[in-house]
Amino acid sequence: MKTKLNYEVGELEAESTRPFPESTKVYATGSRSDLRVPFRRIRLDPTPAAFGAQANLPVTVYDTSGPYTDPGFTPDLVRGLPHLRSAWIRERGDTEVHQGSLRAKEGGNVTQLHYARQGIVTPEMEFAAIREGRSPEFVRQEIASGRAILPANVNHPELEPMIIGRNFLVKINGNIGNSAVRSSISEEVGKMVWAARWGADTIMDLSTGNRISETREGILRNCPVPLGTVPMYQALEKFNGNVCKLSWEVFKETLIEQAEQGVDYFTIHAGVRLSFIPLVGKRVTGIVSRGGAILAKWCLIHHQENFLYTHFEDICQILKAYDVAFSLGDGLRPGSIADANDEAQFAELRTLGELTEVAWKHDVQVMIEGPGHVPMHKIKENMDLQLELCHEAPFYTLGPLTTDLAPGYDHITSAIGAAMIGWYGTAMLCYVTPKEHLGLPNKKDVKDGIIAYKIAAHAADLAKGLPGVQQRDDALSKARFEFRWNDQFNLSFDPDTARAFHDDTLPQEGAKIAHFCSMCGPHFCSMKISQDLKEYSLVRGLEPEEALKVGLSEKAAEFQRSLETSGS
Amino acid sequence: MKTKLNYEVGELEAESTRPFPESTKVYATGSRSDLRVPFRRIRLDPTPAAFGAQANLPVTVYDTSGPYTDPGFTPDLVRGLPHLRSAWIRERGDTEVHQGSLRAKEGGNVTQLHYARQGIVTPEMEFAAIREGRSPEFVRQEIASGRAILPANVNHPELEPMIIGRNFLVKINGNIGNSAVRSSISEEVGKMVWAARWGADTIMDLSTGNRISETREGILRNCPVPLGTVPMYQALEKFNGNVCKLSWEVFKETLIEQAEQGVDYFTIHAGVRLSFIPLVGKRVTGIVSRGGAILAKWCLIHHQENFLYTHFEDICQILKAYDVAFSLGDGLRPGSIADANDEAQFAELRTLGELTEVAWKHDVQVMIEGPGHVPMHKIKENMDLQLELCHEAPFYTLGPLTTDLAPGYDHITSAIGAAMIGWYGTAMLCYVTPKEHLGLPNKKDVKDGIIAYKIAAHAADLAKGLPGVQQRDDALSKARFEFRWNDQFNLSFDPDTARAFHDDTLPQEGAKIAHFCSMCGPHFCSMKISQDLKEYSLVRGLEPEEALKVGLSEKAAEFQRSLETSGS
Repeated sequence: MKTKLNYEVGELEAESTRPFPESTKVYATGSRSDLRVPFRRIRLDPTPAAFGAQANLPVTVYDTSGPYTDPGFTPDLVRGLPHLRSAWIRERGDTEVHQGSLRAKEGGNVTQLHYARQGIVTPEMEFAAIREGRSPEFVRQEIASGRAILPANVNHPELEPMIIGRNFLVKINGNIGNSAVRSSISEEVGKMVWAARWGADTIMDLSTGNRISETREGILRNCPVPLGTVPMYQALEKFNGNVCKLSWEVFKETLIEQAEQGVDYFTIHAGVRLSFIPLVGKRVTGIVSRGGAILAKWCLIHHQENFLYTHFEDICQILKAYDVAFSLGDGLRPGSIADANDEAQFAELRTLGELTEVAWKHDVQVMIEGPGHVPMHKIKENMDLQLELCHEAPFYTLGPLTTDLAPGYDHITSAIGAAMIGWYGTAMLCYVTPKEHLGLPNKKDVKDGIIAYKIAAHAADLAKGLPGVQQRDDALSKARFEFRWNDQFNLSFDPDTARAFHDDTLPQEGAKIAHFCSMCGPHFCSMKISQDLKEYSLVRGLEPEEALKVGLSEKAAEFQRSLETSGS
Repeated sequence: MKTKLNYEVGELEAESTRPFPESTKVYATGSRSDLRVPFRRIRLDPTPAAFGAQANLPVTVYDTSGPYTDPGFTPDLVRGLPHLRSAWIRERGDTEVHQGSLRAKEGGNVTQLHYARQGIVTPEMEFAAIREGRSPEFVRQEIASGRAILPANVNHPELEPMIIGRNFLVKINGNIGNSAVRSSISEEVGKMVWAARWGADTIMDLSTGNRISETREGILRNCPVPLGTVPMYQALEKFNGNVCKLSWEVFKETLIEQAEQGVDYFTIHAGVRLSFIPLVGKRVTGIVSRGGAILAKWCLIHHQENFLYTHFEDICQILKAYDVAFSLGDGLRPGSIADANDEAQFAELRTLGELTEVAWKHDVQVMIEGPGHVPMHKIKENMDLQLELCHEAPFYTLGPLTTDLAPGYDHITSAIGAAMIGWYGTAMLCYVTPKEHLGLPNKKDVKDGIIAYKIAAHAADLAKGLPGVQQRDDALSKARFEFRWNDQFNLSFDPDTARAFHDDTLPQEGAKIAHFCSMCGPHFCSMKISQDLKEYSLVRGLEPEEALKVGLSEKAAEFQRSLETSGS
């Protein structure tokens, strides 16, 4: 349905599409031939003879990068990505074309939640199930119960379906977007591809500057992951930033425009109610959510209830016609340690819980946004309350940042909180870049944010004990122990940086097969000595336990002699 | 007593000694005029008129940087730092000079633990108490009970005393040191000053390369924080790396040499017992501690018990003559997620607990080293077991790293674990730099590691609810809310980076007093809108709660008019 862009969006840099080292893009085919689920397979070297000579099976990992890392694919940003889902959507026969876009037929409902509740396993659900290594029926059940969402607008056929819910892998979102202050369309498209390459499971386009609509279109047509937006930003631009003039009618128009373009989830700050605004009066940092602040101002100017709250069912009617998911915004999230877990925050959370039930009445998918700035000892309360008040709808948190003291390093202050809240049950973590509080992220900041959040999400998956998630850690650690340096790099989240840091100390290519670590040098390498110990038992065909039990001084002398001859 | 170095050590770079922006070095004088405790006082701008015009009190922070950041001090690396503690040590009258160094008089004991148990509050204890804002008597009690240590060798008079224990601020250690692979003496001295500048509470010199002794001397004479070492490294160098030849006699010599130089704590891997070595046979990564691996190899070669274990009381005799504290090394710590919390690790921990009691019998101070690589859900067990098995001696952990997948980013994988274990009760966190597993840290890596660990330690302090620790966060957040950009930078852990990141987006000097955030631009700045709300009530002399209760449409109209005239 979607046609190519009618403007230039530049070209991708080579570093954005280069395949990962020793990696092959592989596809697992599902129950139909057009259901091909991408993975990345990392080839490993064999264990060297000295350490027991064995083959090491390749490690296959979840792949968010889209077709860009497939050597058989040539990107054309004007034409956009192939339409993976078009046939699936068409076959359901419940949509119609309206002014060049798809929408549900009159009175229809095209959400994945609607299908799941009817017991239908869609190709999208099967796709997500294969990615996660779970059964399609399990995916359907989790969606039907509201514990998970599968954001997939019928107008975003380029999307590779994925699932967000606490019984699946923890996901991460990367924010991009221009502002009046800077940035261009091609830069934002480039950041999107870059973020997906390093592991962003979804992207939010938070543009507030010029050409919001074209920027979003350029991103969507090239975006292999779900795209979220805050429609309020565009609505407000239509009034040149004058909050006073904002109206439901213009907001509604904006929602429809973005739903027609293919946005997969909307942040809607419907919980910022007039009566909660006074609760922020005592705060150190007031309201720090842009959307929340805009609505609070509108409520005060007009002394009326938030129109997103009063029109919530109208919004549901729009969202179910395209399958746009709600991301119920936490407009009153705390912006400082001092404001964490206060009355304003939790009052809003209670309202989001009520709205969740309203959305579910319409079979519209929902996730709930969370804070913010929260010290470690107050994080669990957020998760527990969210599950209780919002009926187990997926939680989607920004960090939280565990101290206010490190502008320039907020990817770290927040990765701490994100890992913890992910372990406690948060389904998706919204990244924070080093530029948070200071400026707009550039490409380097985007990558730094994504890697920090891959770390947080994976640490959470390990702590949750999800099946199979430790396999890659074990493979990397085995490679490390066997001095397979290249495998260690290639299995890591960022092979380029790992390799560069190693080469910084030992640049010679030979060092990558050296049997000592570049930190310690040959005499002091614990890994090397530890290998010697292993060899001591292995060469004698003994388990290490037995090797010691034998424990004869004769054996010790023999070992001693063998070390001397080998020059250790 | 100590004399100047007889070799060149280069000069410090200007960036290592420059005072922090808007900061003054201030001293709090204790019960005697030569007891002057350094702090850094950060001057703040007043709140602008639009936000309520008020003065903002300066914020005074703990200062590890030593005399280097005092504009009245001119560094002379060959001469070394002034001898802050010489008079205190001399007045106690319990030391004698032996070959140019101090040691306890025959049969004496000069440890802070020994004094504390006799009810004596030393100037060192008072100094640490003033730094922490606690009473000297509380410091004495915590040391006497073994819950805290004050590492302060009588031959390190340059040291500014500090305390390590879970009822005080969480401390961080930075590792430096050359290796056979690279680095020089002047580079290591430079790294030490640099690490202390950014917040290292102690430094460990892990040199294993050439001129170990001169490197350590160069560091010690210029080091304002306690210095730790792993004496085994130097002992092994004496045999050119041949583990087989290692002996107690040479190790003992090395301990005495380093104690005479002024090392404040020794990592001693006395818990790597012969019978535990087979337990590592099933591990993915065997033994990853260098000291642990060396001793395991020695035990196997000779098929004898670890000589550090069998000679432990002899070591205590040496340590109490100089007041060197034990850092009981965890030679069997896990080096991968797969090996966390295994039998080998906890068997060693049990032995460290036994040795703690032996050391305490001699009034020698003890802390216990901890892992390593541990997934989040297994961290608390480490802390709880350590407190139980080691009788509440302070825990000193490396990270732990919460996933193995991010070489190049292990300051982040480990800051997550460090923050958590710090909250649970760890007294000192050993930093991990981005170069961990890959190479030796350069100056940039040292700073990245220190800042990541300042974040982890401070997040832990916040979660522990120590008195006063949130004050700086609150001051920074208030500055952020009032658009006092310079104050926001200056209150942060790294003002240089915060400022540079901001200028990257909005380089004009005027932007630093702009009333909007550099991320969002003027229309979308939530902080700005939130300020408007505050003003709405403030200008009317109403509390925000009342402002809303008044709630007349007349008021709304008035507010609307005021916004239009002000051009919002």
